[in-house]
Amino acid sequence: MSASPYKQLEQEFKRLHAFRGALSLLRWDAAVMMPRGSADVRGEQLAALETEYHALLTAPKITRLLDRAQANTQGLADWQVANLREMRRQRDHAIATPVALVARLAKAASRAEARWLEARAQGKFESFAPHLEEVVHLVRDKAALLGQALNLAPYDALVDEFSPGITTADIDAMFKALSRRLPSLIREAIAVQEGRPPLPLAGKFPAGKQRALTLEVMKAVGFPFDRGRLDESEQPFTEGVPGDIRVTTRFVPEDVFSGLLGALHETGHAMYDLGLPQDWRDQPVGRDRGMALGESQSLLIEMMVCRSRPFVRYLQPLLVRHFGVSGPEWDVENLYAHLIRVQRGAIRVDADELTYPLHIMLRYELEKQLLSGELAVRDLSEAWNAGMESRLGIRPANDLEGCLQDIHWAVGSFGYFPSYALGAVIAAQLYESLRVEVTALDEQLARGEFAGLFGWLRTQVHGLGAKVPVQELLKGATGKPLSATSFIRYVEAKYLESATSVAAA
Amino acid sequence: MSASPYKQLEQEFKRLHAFRGALSLLRWDAAVMMPRGSADVRGEQLAALETEYHALLTAPKITRLLDRAQANTQGLADWQVANLREMRRQRDHAIATPVALVARLAKAASRAEARWLEARAQGKFESFAPHLEEVVHLVRDKAALLGQALNLAPYDALVDEFSPGITTADIDAMFKALSRRLPSLIREAIAVQEGRPPLPLAGKFPAGKQRALTLEVMKAVGFPFDRGRLDESEQPFTEGVPGDIRVTTRFVPEDVFSGLLGALHETGHAMYDLGLPQDWRDQPVGRDRGMALGESQSLLIEMMVCRSRPFVRYLQPLLVRHFGVSGPEWDVENLYAHLIRVQRGAIRVDADELTYPLHIMLRYELEKQLLSGELAVRDLSEAWNAGMESRLGIRPANDLEGCLQDIHWAVGSFGYFPSYALGAVIAAQLYESLRVEVTALDEQLARGEFAGLFGWLRTQVHGLGAKVPVQELLKGATGKPLSATSFIRYVEAKYLESATSVAAA
Repeated sequence: MSASPYKQLEQEFKRLHAFRGALSLLRWDAAVMMPRGSADVRGEQLAALETEYHALLTAPKITRLLDRAQANTQGLADWQVANLREMRRQRDHAIATPVALVARLAKAASRAEARWLEARAQGKFESFAPHLEEVVHLVRDKAALLGQALNLAPYDALVDEFSPGITTADIDAMFKALSRRLPSLIREAIAVQEGRPPLPLAGKFPAGKQRALTLEVMKAVGFPFDRGRLDESEQPFTEGVPGDIRVTTRFVPEDVFSGLLGALHETGHAMYDLGLPQDWRDQPVGRDRGMALGESQSLLIEMMVCRSRPFVRYLQPLLVRHFGVSGPEWDVENLYAHLIRVQRGAIRVDADELTYPLHIMLRYELEKQLLSGELAVRDLSEAWNAGMESRLGIRPANDLEGCLQDIHWAVGSFGYFPSYALGAVIAAQLYESLRVEVTALDEQLARGEFAGLFGWLRTQVHGLGAKVPVQELLKGATGKPLSATSFIRYVEAKYLESATSVAAA
Repeated sequence: MSASPYKQLEQEFKRLHAFRGALSLLRWDAAVMMPRGSADVRGEQLAALETEYHALLTAPKITRLLDRAQANTQGLADWQVANLREMRRQRDHAIATPVALVARLAKAASRAEARWLEARAQGKFESFAPHLEEVVHLVRDKAALLGQALNLAPYDALVDEFSPGITTADIDAMFKALSRRLPSLIREAIAVQEGRPPLPLAGKFPAGKQRALTLEVMKAVGFPFDRGRLDESEQPFTEGVPGDIRVTTRFVPEDVFSGLLGALHETGHAMYDLGLPQDWRDQPVGRDRGMALGESQSLLIEMMVCRSRPFVRYLQPLLVRHFGVSGPEWDVENLYAHLIRVQRGAIRVDADELTYPLHIMLRYELEKQLLSGELAVRDLSEAWNAGMESRLGIRPANDLEGCLQDIHWAVGSFGYFPSYALGAVIAAQLYESLRVEVTALDEQLARGEFAGLFGWLRTQVHGLGAKVPVQELLKGATGKPLSATSFIRYVEAKYLESATSVAAA
């Protein structure tokens, strides 16, 4: 007797999982190890494997097996039914965009990325605009096809690729709540902080010592170095699969925190991957539940756990030991003040928790307008600068500080930006419930103990993989649907803390 | 009009080349970067890609295209005709062994490798024997099927996988010539060297300094670090593709030479890969011409070029500069004496040029006997020890120094060992002609100039890729068919050099 359609599908998707792992390693190597001159060779390897992956996933055999398996799900456990649903989801996404369009988009994106780099070197948007326009046209076609296939509005179909189950309505509601409170809160927070500016942390912090510190903290957090690595790259990122996870960061000798926090942000991603359900690791249902939830895990660790007073109490003696520093500027309160500094700036990746969502709102509105045709690509630079001025009161000095700062649109990633803001909001909602249920959390963090934290996250988030939609997961973990309320409560408490309560803490 | 069958084949094999490159990177990473606990994950990735590679190569489409292209080769250039021949060769080798047998052999080899490691830890052959026996049985089946498909004797079919165009008759003739001269030559060389023993090179040579020296020498040799890397691993090896070549070595702090020479041996391999015909890099005809020729290139660099007086003249000031050493033991003559030291020993990988072929002869005879059934696996240990005694006058103290020292048979590599000896013989034959035609070679090497050396090798060897059989390549480059005569002349001159000529040199 041959295996059931469902069991045959598990075999097929196990193979696809192995392909994904290989592709991930090829990308990691390209960013971390590969000699500079080998990009063309690597490009061909990635294209060959991606093409084959797409062909295997969209093969008629898979469709036939899915139809047969879904026609009769009796006898399947709930994880298996969810797995079938995720298999279908992956196949539907892959088949909706014709191979020719995928290839045209990949080529246009590759050209646009090169021109984006050139335009950045010159600081001028104009030379990049026609290439971005080509990408926008192709993404528009893709969004229309994807929307038809998934029965979603075009932009929602793009969002669904990155953050399944999240719609424009969810995003709009979130941004409405945030834009009601954040602008005034930013003013108030800056006023509070100006009253007690931190002492500067001057000095040189050699990369080797920063690395030793980072490794020690990551070990304490629970990163398994027998199944993962920390390396350095231009931008921090996480690649790999749960059995072999690769995290990177970038150490800046003048900055004692940025390399460590970059690594901890990525460790948040990695811990999510590592906590995915062991039994389903090579199946679609065993994957993460998309970018928004993924970003919630990295932000929860970096922003909420590590930029907190209890964590700084744990970290402070390590800074003293690793860098041999001393003096009042290395006191817990002064270090903490550095970690929660609020400043209006032009650059998204340098932004703090309070101003960050405003950067995302701008991008969200602009990318929807670009795709709908409401905004012409040639007018993007001006629209960007005007948007920054009205939202943050800052006018970028040039396009480098403006619409040339992010790579996302150049490489065709539209619908991706909202996941950053969604991630922050989801993180705050989870963290609020987590703090209620893990009562001794602050004491544990101050001792460098993370088992309570991750115990809760594994049960409520990581261990569910892709079994349920994000909204359902959030309701299970917090009792509430997605809402910005917890985030606003969290930032109000953190950034409007009065001087009295500080002294008492 | 659709592309011609030949052009379609080029596209198919371009894709296969990209798969090979990806597989090579996965193996490199596993040996150099991968966390220890990730072997299972990597194993699944390798298996998935290898299976797919095999499926693509043996697909009916390829066979149909090959039949159509080979039915009418009019209008094809000679490189294209040779490319077709190599495509067919790859497909014939791949299709001759049924997938089920390939999978059984892979599993048995994987088990045997694990048991080989255990047996080494205990120093006992017995526990490994049944697992080796399983591998031998499966390799015997494979050799029979491969032999039928390729119209070769079973063992010749195995040799053909590694060293195409080389037969048992070639190997027998070579070993006959070598065994007539080497035993007495070893005695004479040892007697000469005992008359003037070198001063010891004591000291600690930190890995970091050895690495800096090795990088400097590799740069001088011409290794392109913008398209390649040097790393460290348990055993030196070369992986990658010509546009992204990865070389490794192992630095031993007590040994000033082994890490450098390991890297230079692998650089010889890499320079061969890098010299392959640029226009055919992603096609079968653009690949190397097998293991024997490959090993000739690494041995030519390590043994003939780098273990020579002119090279030591170039190297000596670098040793002084990198390690701050001084004294008579660091003179050119003393260093050279270390590099050409002849010693009878039990371990193949530690053997010098003179005793090395005797180690290979033993393995060649034993593996043929194992496959034919003439020798039972349970009697291997005794046969090995007896063979060592009769050939080298050395009886291994235990199986660790005996039949457990090499991994090759455990992982199913039979027919591979002869390529090491063939490589040495081919290298000597090429080097003899090279020295006649590049008249200023010694002066160039003493100045650290390698352009003359590689200019000749590129024209006569590297640039031909897999266009012609090894024998034809050798005739073109040296005017003579494969023969051990040059090797014997070379080792006689090098190892029986009289004290007078040393003084004059």
